[in-house]
Amino acid sequence: MAPMRAEPHRARAAFGTILALLAGCGSTSQKHLPEESSQIVERILERALTEGETWSKLQELCGEAPHRLSGSEGAQRAVEWALEKMRADGLENVRLEPCTVPRWERGQVEELTLLQPEAGERLPILALGGSVATPAEGVEGELFVVDGLEELERLGDAVHDRIVLLNDPMSATRADPFRAYGEAVGQRVRGASVAARFGARAVLVRSMTTRLDHVPHTGALRYDPETKPIPAAAVSTLGAERLARLAARETVRLRLRLDCRSLDPVPSFNVVGEWVGRELPEEIVLVGGHLDAWDVGQGAHDCGAGCCQSMEALRLLRSLGLRPRRTLRAVLFMNEENGRAGGRAYREAHQGERHVLALESDRGAFTPRGFTTDAEGEARLRIEAVAGLLEEAGAGTIVSGGGGADIEFLAQDGAVLVGYLPDPQRYFDLHHSERDTLDAIHPRELELGTAAMAAMIYLVADWPTPWPVRKSES
Amino acid sequence: MAPMRAEPHRARAAFGTILALLAGCGSTSQKHLPEESSQIVERILERALTEGETWSKLQELCGEAPHRLSGSEGAQRAVEWALEKMRADGLENVRLEPCTVPRWERGQVEELTLLQPEAGERLPILALGGSVATPAEGVEGELFVVDGLEELERLGDAVHDRIVLLNDPMSATRADPFRAYGEAVGQRVRGASVAARFGARAVLVRSMTTRLDHVPHTGALRYDPETKPIPAAAVSTLGAERLARLAARETVRLRLRLDCRSLDPVPSFNVVGEWVGRELPEEIVLVGGHLDAWDVGQGAHDCGAGCCQSMEALRLLRSLGLRPRRTLRAVLFMNEENGRAGGRAYREAHQGERHVLALESDRGAFTPRGFTTDAEGEARLRIEAVAGLLEEAGAGTIVSGGGGADIEFLAQDGAVLVGYLPDPQRYFDLHHSERDTLDAIHPRELELGTAAMAAMIYLVADWPTPWPVRKSES
Repeated sequence: MAPMRAEPHRARAAFGTILALLAGCGSTSQKHLPEESSQIVERILERALTEGETWSKLQELCGEAPHRLSGSEGAQRAVEWALEKMRADGLENVRLEPCTVPRWERGQVEELTLLQPEAGERLPILALGGSVATPAEGVEGELFVVDGLEELERLGDAVHDRIVLLNDPMSATRADPFRAYGEAVGQRVRGASVAARFGARAVLVRSMTTRLDHVPHTGALRYDPETKPIPAAAVSTLGAERLARLAARETVRLRLRLDCRSLDPVPSFNVVGEWVGRELPEEIVLVGGHLDAWDVGQGAHDCGAGCCQSMEALRLLRSLGLRPRRTLRAVLFMNEENGRAGGRAYREAHQGERHVLALESDRGAFTPRGFTTDAEGEARLRIEAVAGLLEEAGAGTIVSGGGGADIEFLAQDGAVLVGYLPDPQRYFDLHHSERDTLDAIHPRELELGTAAMAAMIYLVADWPTPWPVRKSES
Repeated sequence: MAPMRAEPHRARAAFGTILALLAGCGSTSQKHLPEESSQIVERILERALTEGETWSKLQELCGEAPHRLSGSEGAQRAVEWALEKMRADGLENVRLEPCTVPRWERGQVEELTLLQPEAGERLPILALGGSVATPAEGVEGELFVVDGLEELERLGDAVHDRIVLLNDPMSATRADPFRAYGEAVGQRVRGASVAARFGARAVLVRSMTTRLDHVPHTGALRYDPETKPIPAAAVSTLGAERLARLAARETVRLRLRLDCRSLDPVPSFNVVGEWVGRELPEEIVLVGGHLDAWDVGQGAHDCGAGCCQSMEALRLLRSLGLRPRRTLRAVLFMNEENGRAGGRAYREAHQGERHVLALESDRGAFTPRGFTTDAEGEARLRIEAVAGLLEEAGAGTIVSGGGGADIEFLAQDGAVLVGYLPDPQRYFDLHHSERDTLDAIHPRELELGTAAMAAMIYLVADWPTPWPVRKSES
């Protein structure tokens, strides 16, 4: 780039055009946004970019409790850390709220060994979350490779006594990797149950990423209660391709050893803190992420970042003296990854309250794009109006969709759901793998996300007119 | 992220809303976009994401000619590589077009040494492009730190016989780092001339990045012909902070040694290839980047990526059998970084031709955001309509601004200028430094950019009705 050229002036982004046109076409929703809103957004952005503490929070969390799967010691340390942090930040009504979570442990043994050909060669694997163990001596069998669930269903009994590899690649052709993930992840969730129904001994699943490398990506499976659970593990994308190539030309025999185990459910907690509204304290605008994370990497993007952004959004607003009309409530949910007990418990405990909007950050912490939302009508227009003020921060896009796994229970009580939407391109490079570490997060991108979230929840919570009641609300 | 949640359906992005509203408000520009346009965009995206060759091109260029400052052997290798590549890709009318470029060499000696206090401590530096050398024994002097150009002008004679450090930090408070760069870069471009006017011996400039690290960032300076040129070098941000802290408490003496030099101008080339239009071959839609790069790192983002995206956009369209009505012309400009001789020469050679639009990619190759443009009226609406089809690829935003340093000469002849706009947050971490290497580029983000550029130039070049003549056109 040249040193002397005139820099483009971001005079008016596309969204500005929308708003102007909306006004021209008769909508009045923009007028409801108080005039000072854009100055408030600017203050939030500047403060976040210069004195934001999301990064330092995340550094603490990733250091204190890198592995924090539900029911683990790490999860408990994360709960204690978050409670202490919210108090230190001066949030109000800081508390733990109980839930009961499943407990699964990876154990010490994860081995996939070729017996024939290349006897003794090992391929890196990760047990899928929830998998049963193999016997101590392992499960041995002939490899049977299928393209995915459909082929598995079609071939059926052919997999009897085999070790099945589900090798449907997450498609690279989708511009949005989350769509590709949604299309391919069924084999990880249901593959073991389907294969077990046809008598398979164990299941291997190709990792959910478009990247070709040697890093396995874990994630939860779900056993059908009607079939006997069989052990299941993720192989890396290159590992899956190697196995498939070998099997295409000769008989492949493998041994799988896992000593993971499920224990009895244990008590755990959501961590909650507030910035109480000055006029309508009983109306809640919730912001949150999930505090549990897989037991590999550090859960930095998934979802340490979302938790730290949520806590920090409230601290940031408080530091700016911005107390909105309605109450802001940060909730760090437990157990999103393998059960969603925290989300369910929260809804049960709070279903009598009026949640006007719930915003979850659980798609990583790359550069901001905007928000997903299930809002319609006037609520949607308001959310679009706020996003319009976030164009320069890169967060101006509104996309139809849900908000996040933890908050979706709140829709039935009338909450509008919003999801923070960072750029998705790099997320599945590291999702549920050892790569999901702090150094995969760019500090400015992280703080910009916090600022965008803070602006969204503040302007919604401070909306001067009543928040529209959802049509679906009973 | 949970394994089982429903994935949001990207039903309708904000931009879709605009278009619908525009239609409702009476604009007809959307109707001009042929119905099959969205299918074409989809085909381009899929092909780019699965069989795109931008990454492999860039790998070759960064390997073949990592250092390719104008007039260097590397620049000549890059020219030859690009010529050969365009031919191999099957582009038409592939050719070199001459220009005469300045030649500056960094030399072997770049030393900044503390003499007092901490005698002997070295700080990493990079000579600014175009700087004169110091005498072989170096320039010694007392350090004088100023906040920036304004303070330097104000203090004036106080810097006589001193080594001046211009220490204006690139502001972190701007959400758009390009704005912050534009505000701070004057000290690098003009600092040496202003300091020389007041009798300073040499100039040090704080690197243009918000990141705090030990990596110096180079870039061009411009000497005022009225003042004697003095040597100038960039120090890293941490280096600048260290010097400023030392100078705040005591006298600091330094020695600067540089053996860079300017040689006589030499002949060089722009590299040009086409995909000739099927109906209006004399109307040109230009796409380009600059082939020269600073002599540190590999010029991967700046601007190897833009060059490879431009070449690849034409190959991609050709591979899909998409030959538009108008001619597509890829131009890899020489000498953007320190003179823009290629841009000037191109304009002189082609000013009789009708360029309807010129698109430059010279802001790095991070995930797509959209495009800058100086287009107004109907042309702007058309460009927005195309961008609207690129929402899912992340390239839906249109921002007012110029197109790029090489193409801006074409505006006077009536070309609409467009700049490819990737995400800006990480760019100045690596701009003009040893960090600008291939591994700082994400393959999917790179190929998505190519796809967005290919879609923009194809749909413009294939526009079924005449392209509007610019008001400014003579």
